[in-house]
Amino acid sequence: MKDKIPYYAVIFTSTQTDDTEGYSKIAEKMETLARQQEGFIGIESARNTIGITISYWESLDAIKNWKANTEHLFAQQKGREQWYNWYNVKICKVEREYEFLRPRSLKL
Amino acid sequence: MKDKIPYYAVIFTSTQTDDTEGYSKIAEKMETLARQQEGFIGIESARNTIGITISYWESLDAIKNWKANTEHLFAQQKGREQWYNWYNVKICKVEREYEFLRPRSLKL
Repeated sequence: MKDKIPYYAVIFTSTQTDDTEGYSKIAEKMETLARQQEGFIGIESARNTIGITISYWESLDAIKNWKANTEHLFAQQKGREQWYNWYNVKICKVEREYEFLRPRSLKL
Repeated sequence: MKDKIPYYAVIFTSTQTDDTEGYSKIAEKMETLARQQEGFIGIESARNTIGITISYWESLDAIKNWKANTEHLFAQQKGREQWYNWYNVKICKVEREYEFLRPRSLKL
């Protein structure tokens, strides 16, 4: 996404409670919804001990709008009430980016 | 780390090859070494389909120094030769941060 620099990243890190009932369904729904937002660029997730989800946006306004989305607000509240022991949100400006892709010939 | 704003995040996302021999040991060593660098703030990792490692730094100079560290350069080369099919590095300025911590009384 180097061609979009500068753009914004929202780093969401979290630890979950034991009560994750309903989480997967809502998480999936939120990802689908996020992808439909104006200014959305991409999303990446992984979870072991902690969960890390990073969403990428064209502007701070796009992030603000997504944070204030009605269904997303409901999910955020459910998260605080039930799914998360802790979470941290960082709003970041992506200033530089580079990438490595293994050449096909070396894949053998 | 809200008190350190603005600070910097290096978002390292990757997919691995089938040949991860030696990876864990070097990854652990690199984390130990990173923690000893001037300007290091913290590190967070998770891996499922993709791996996400985010390291946090006080300045762009601290990131530059860590990137040029001799042992780290060796590990980067090994990564390209053996462990990674793909990786992407984003240098980001952390501009805002907020956190949720479940109150103890609600943990029951």
